[in-house]
Amino acid sequence: MAAKFASEKNVKFMLYEVHDLMSLTKLEYYSMHNKKAFDMILDAGMQMAKDMYYPIFKEMDEVHPELADGTVKVHADVKKIMKEAGEGGWISATFPIEFDGGQLPTMLNCATHHMFGAANYSGSVYPGLTSGAAKLITSFGSKELIDTYVPNMLDGKWQGTMALTEPQAGSSLADITTTAYPQEDGSYKIKGQKVFISAGDHDGVENIVHLMLAKIEGAPPGVKGISLFVAPKYRPTADGKLEYNDIAVSQVFHKMGYRGAPITELAIGDKGECVGWLVGKPHHGLKYMFQMMNGARLDVGNAATSIACAAYYASLDYAKQRPQGRKLGQKDLSKPQVSIIEHADVKRMLLQQKAIVEGSLSLILQCHKYEDLETAAADPEEAEKYNLLCEILTPIAKTYPSEMGIISTSNAIQCLGGYGYCQDFPVEQYYRDIRIHPIHEGTTGIQGMDLLGRKVVMLEGKAFKLFKEEMEKTLVMAEESDVYKEYAGLLRDALADIEEVTAHKMKVAATKGAEAFLADACLYLEMFGYMTIGWQWLLQALMAQKGLDGGKAKKMKDLYEGKIITCKYFFKYELIKAKALKIRLMEDDYLTAEAPASCFND
Amino acid sequence: MAAKFASEKNVKFMLYEVHDLMSLTKLEYYSMHNKKAFDMILDAGMQMAKDMYYPIFKEMDEVHPELADGTVKVHADVKKIMKEAGEGGWISATFPIEFDGGQLPTMLNCATHHMFGAANYSGSVYPGLTSGAAKLITSFGSKELIDTYVPNMLDGKWQGTMALTEPQAGSSLADITTTAYPQEDGSYKIKGQKVFISAGDHDGVENIVHLMLAKIEGAPPGVKGISLFVAPKYRPTADGKLEYNDIAVSQVFHKMGYRGAPITELAIGDKGECVGWLVGKPHHGLKYMFQMMNGARLDVGNAATSIACAAYYASLDYAKQRPQGRKLGQKDLSKPQVSIIEHADVKRMLLQQKAIVEGSLSLILQCHKYEDLETAAADPEEAEKYNLLCEILTPIAKTYPSEMGIISTSNAIQCLGGYGYCQDFPVEQYYRDIRIHPIHEGTTGIQGMDLLGRKVVMLEGKAFKLFKEEMEKTLVMAEESDVYKEYAGLLRDALADIEEVTAHKMKVAATKGAEAFLADACLYLEMFGYMTIGWQWLLQALMAQKGLDGGKAKKMKDLYEGKIITCKYFFKYELIKAKALKIRLMEDDYLTAEAPASCFND
Repeated sequence: MAAKFASEKNVKFMLYEVHDLMSLTKLEYYSMHNKKAFDMILDAGMQMAKDMYYPIFKEMDEVHPELADGTVKVHADVKKIMKEAGEGGWISATFPIEFDGGQLPTMLNCATHHMFGAANYSGSVYPGLTSGAAKLITSFGSKELIDTYVPNMLDGKWQGTMALTEPQAGSSLADITTTAYPQEDGSYKIKGQKVFISAGDHDGVENIVHLMLAKIEGAPPGVKGISLFVAPKYRPTADGKLEYNDIAVSQVFHKMGYRGAPITELAIGDKGECVGWLVGKPHHGLKYMFQMMNGARLDVGNAATSIACAAYYASLDYAKQRPQGRKLGQKDLSKPQVSIIEHADVKRMLLQQKAIVEGSLSLILQCHKYEDLETAAADPEEAEKYNLLCEILTPIAKTYPSEMGIISTSNAIQCLGGYGYCQDFPVEQYYRDIRIHPIHEGTTGIQGMDLLGRKVVMLEGKAFKLFKEEMEKTLVMAEESDVYKEYAGLLRDALADIEEVTAHKMKVAATKGAEAFLADACLYLEMFGYMTIGWQWLLQALMAQKGLDGGKAKKMKDLYEGKIITCKYFFKYELIKAKALKIRLMEDDYLTAEAPASCFND
Repeated sequence: MAAKFASEKNVKFMLYEVHDLMSLTKLEYYSMHNKKAFDMILDAGMQMAKDMYYPIFKEMDEVHPELADGTVKVHADVKKIMKEAGEGGWISATFPIEFDGGQLPTMLNCATHHMFGAANYSGSVYPGLTSGAAKLITSFGSKELIDTYVPNMLDGKWQGTMALTEPQAGSSLADITTTAYPQEDGSYKIKGQKVFISAGDHDGVENIVHLMLAKIEGAPPGVKGISLFVAPKYRPTADGKLEYNDIAVSQVFHKMGYRGAPITELAIGDKGECVGWLVGKPHHGLKYMFQMMNGARLDVGNAATSIACAAYYASLDYAKQRPQGRKLGQKDLSKPQVSIIEHADVKRMLLQQKAIVEGSLSLILQCHKYEDLETAAADPEEAEKYNLLCEILTPIAKTYPSEMGIISTSNAIQCLGGYGYCQDFPVEQYYRDIRIHPIHEGTTGIQGMDLLGRKVVMLEGKAFKLFKEEMEKTLVMAEESDVYKEYAGLLRDALADIEEVTAHKMKVAATKGAEAFLADACLYLEMFGYMTIGWQWLLQALMAQKGLDGGKAKKMKDLYEGKIITCKYFFKYELIKAKALKIRLMEDDYLTAEAPASCFND
C-alpha cells in the first residue's frame, strides 16, 4: 500500500468549501460539468497517483537517465505514464472541447496534478509539460500546426517541451542566439544550442516537440526579436512517417534530485537540417511563451507544494509512531515514552509544514480559479480583471511554495532525526527534489523583480488594487466574527505595511533609479508572500468555522479544527516575519547595490 | 589546483586581529608557543587540506561505504588520512605535553579543522572523532586505560568513536538499554545495540575504540544510571595481539550526504563476549560524555561553518565569472553582459553567505578562546567564568552555523542557478553534506531546551550575566566611534529584547510549567543567535576598522572593507529577524503545546 502522500479529503475541502469549485459550473463554459463528475475525476486521479506514480517514485531517483545511441533512456514506466495520461484524457483535461479536450476547470486539474506531483514529481512532469506545450500551439499556432502536432501530444504519443534557455542566456533571455533562417516554403532552418531542457529527449515517446525560442535572422536585438517555433525531433512527412530533424542531445545533466526526468542539452541543426515552423507572428515569441510560462510557474508552485505535502505526511506518520522521551515535567522514567507528536516542538515543526503546504495549495487553487474565471468571462473587462489577479499572484504562487517548501521539507527531515537523513525514508529525496523549484521557470530573483518591478506598478497599480478588493471580501467576512476579527486586524496591518513599503520603493524608483529600487525585490516578494498566504489561511479558517458551525458530518471535525489551529499558527508564527522584512525594506541605504565586488576579496 | 574552499588570510585575521590568539601565549600553559609556529601550523594545515583532503572530496561522496566480510569498506585514502593526522601530530595537537600532545590552543586547532572541514568534511571526521574520544579517556580514565588506548589513537592507528544513540534512545538518552554486567576481574560484559555511530567501523584503521554509554546491571533509572565504558572492536591482549571483542556491524546507513564517513549500527555482545572497561566512576557516564559532547557540538558548528564556507567560495567564484544580463537600467543590448556579481541580488546572496560563514567562524573561535582560557586559568573562579561562557554559547555555536548554514549553501546553489543543481559543480554536495548538522550531537530542539531551560537559568543566570559583560566590552568600544555607535545601539536593543523575552519566559515557567516554558525554545535560540552573531560582527568590524585606520598593508584593504560592509549587512538584513521572533516569543498563547495531535488528521 502506498504511504499517504496527499489528502483527497483536504483537496475536496479546498475545492468545494474554500474555493467553491461548483460556482464555475454556473458559467456557460463549464456548465456541462457537475459535482459527481468532479468527484469521480478526483478519485481517479488519486487512484492513478497511488497505482502508477507512487510505486516508481524511488526507482526513478535511483538511476540517472542516460544518453545511449542518441536517445535518453528513462525509466521503462514513462511509456506507461504518457500512454495512460494521454488515453485517460489527463493531458487534454483543460483543453476546449473543439480540441477533443475535457474543458475542465484548471482548478480541478491543479488538484489532480497535486496528487500526481506528491506521488512522484519527476513522473508527473512528462504529461504536464506536454499539456503546456500543446496549449501554446492551440493558442497561437496555425491550423496546420495544430493538426500536425496537437492530437499526438494530447494522446501522449509525443512529448512537448519548452526550449528557452541557452548556455549564455538563462535569466537573460534577451541574449539568446539560436537563429532561424527563413526558407522559401515558409519554414525556417534553425541553428543553435539549448540547455536545461526538461524531458528534452527520452525513449518513452515516439517524438519530442520543442516549443523553441529563436531569433529570425536580422531580427531586432533583445526580447523584441524573439520568435516562437515548433521544432520536433522528428519531422512528420506527408506520408505519415517520421524523419530525423537534426536535434541531437549533447548532454544529460546529472542532478541532485528530480532525477526521474532528464534535463538535456540540445544541439540544434548542427548539420544544417533542423526545420522549424513559426508559431504566430514573428518577434512575438516571448509574449506567447509567457502564456505557457505563467502556467508553468503555477505548476512549479504546485509541484513544490506537492513535494512538501508528501514530506509532511511522511514526517507526520513517523511522528505518530515514533516513541521518544516523555512530556516535559514528567519525571517518572518507568512510564513509557510518548510518541514524538506529543512534543510541542515537534507539533511546531508539523504545524509549520501544514501551514506552508496547505496555505500554498490554497493560493495556487485561488490563482487557477481566477484563470478559470478569465476563460469563462462574459466580457473583456471581466476577463482582464481575472487575468490581472492571476498576473499579480503568479510570482508569489511560484515562489512562496518553492522557497518555503525547502524549509518545510527540511522540517520533515528534522522530525525524523537521523533517520530522515538516510535513504530508508523518503524525506531526503523530497528535500533533494524540491530544491529545483526556486530555480526553474524564473528564479526567485526574477520573480521578485517581476512582482515589484512589473506587476505591482502595471496599469497604475490596477492589479494590486484588484487584489486588495479580493482580500477585502475575506476581511469583511472575518470582521463579523468575534474570533477572527483579531486575525483580520493582523492581516489589515500586514497590508498597511506592504502599502507603506510599496510607496517607499516607488519613491526610491523615482529618485534613485532601477537598481536601488529593485535591490531588495526578493525580500519584498517574501513579505508579500506572508500576507497573501495569511489571506488564504484566514479564508480557510472561516470556511472551516462555517463547516463546524453548520454541524457537518463528524468525520470533518478534526480537519476543520486543524484548519483553525493552523490559521492561528500562521498568523502567530509566520506572518510576523513580514514585520522584520518591513524594517529592512523601509531603510534608505542601498547596501547590496553599492557594495563593490572587491568586498568579497580575501 | 584545488578550488578555493577557505581563506587562510581571513582565518589569520580572525585569529590574530579579532581574537588575539597571541594573548594566550602570555599564559603559562601556552607560553612555549610563538606566532611563527602558529603560522607554520596554519600553513601546513592549509597545505594538507589542499593536498590530502580536497582531492578526494567528490570521490568520497560517490561511493557509499559498504559492509563486506564484517568490516566497513571506506575510501582507500582514509588510511592515509589517519596515518598523516596521527604522525603529523594533528590528532594530539591540543593534548597536554604529558600525553605527547602539542599543548596547542584549541582556537588554533579549530582554525585548521575549519580548513580540513571545508576541504572535505567526511574525511576530516575520522581524526576529529578520534581526538575527542581519546581526550575523554585521558580526562577520566585510569592510567591503564590511557596507556592501553590513547597512544594508538593519537597515532592514528586506532579510530575513536562516541557510541551513545540506540534505536529507541536518540534525543532521550535516559532510555538507553545497553547493559554492562560486572565481571570478577573488574571489567564488564556489555550487551546491547547502538545506531548512528559515526566511523563505528572501517578498514582504514587496525582497531575501533568505542566510548560507549551503558547501564550497569541494576543501576538507577534514567540518566543517573548511565556509565561510560571503553569497548574496542578488538581487545589488546597481554602479548600485544588484538582479539575480536564481539562488536559487529549490523548495518551501514546510506545517507543523503556526508557519505565519506560511515554511520553504523552495532550489535554489541551478541555472543556474550564483548568486554568493556569502566571509565571513571559508575553512573557518571553522562557527565563525562558531556565533556566530549560539548567539544563535539563546537566541532559540528565548525563543520557546518566550513561546509558553508566552501559553498560560499564556489558560488563567489562562479559569480565572478558568469556573465548574465546587464545592470538594471542599461537598455543597450549591444553592450556585453556583466558578471552576475554585479547584480545587487547576487551580492545580497553572497553577503548573506559571508555574514553567516564568517560570523559563525568568529563565534566558534570565541568559544574556543574561552575554552583555552579555562584550560590555562590560574584560579578556579576564573576557570569557572570561562567554562560558563563556553557553556552558554555552545548551543548557539552548534545551532546557528548548522541551521543558517543550510540557508547559506542553498544560496550558493541559487547563485549558480540550474548549474548549482547539477553534479558538475560541488555546491549540491555541500547542500547535502551540511544537512546532517542540525541533527547530530543534539538536535536543534535539544539545543533550544539546553539554552533556555538550562544555560540561561543556571546558577541564577550567572552564565548569562558573564556573557553580557563580554558583550559590553565590545559595545563600549563601538560607542567610541561615530560610525559604529549606531550598530552598538542596535545590538543593545537586541539585548534588551532578549532580556525582555527571557523575563517573560521565566514568568511562564513559574506559572504555566515546563512545557509552555520551553515550547518555543528553538525560536528563543534562533533569536539569541542573531544577537550573538551580531556581537561577533561588530567585533570583526571594529578590528577591521582598526586595521584600516592603522594603515596596515594594502593587501588587507579589501578584506577589511569587506568585513565592515558585511557587518552592516548583518545588522540591516539579519539581526532584524530577531524583532519578528520577539513578537512571537512575547505572546501568551501556548498554541503548539496545546494543539491536539488530532488536528493533523485529515
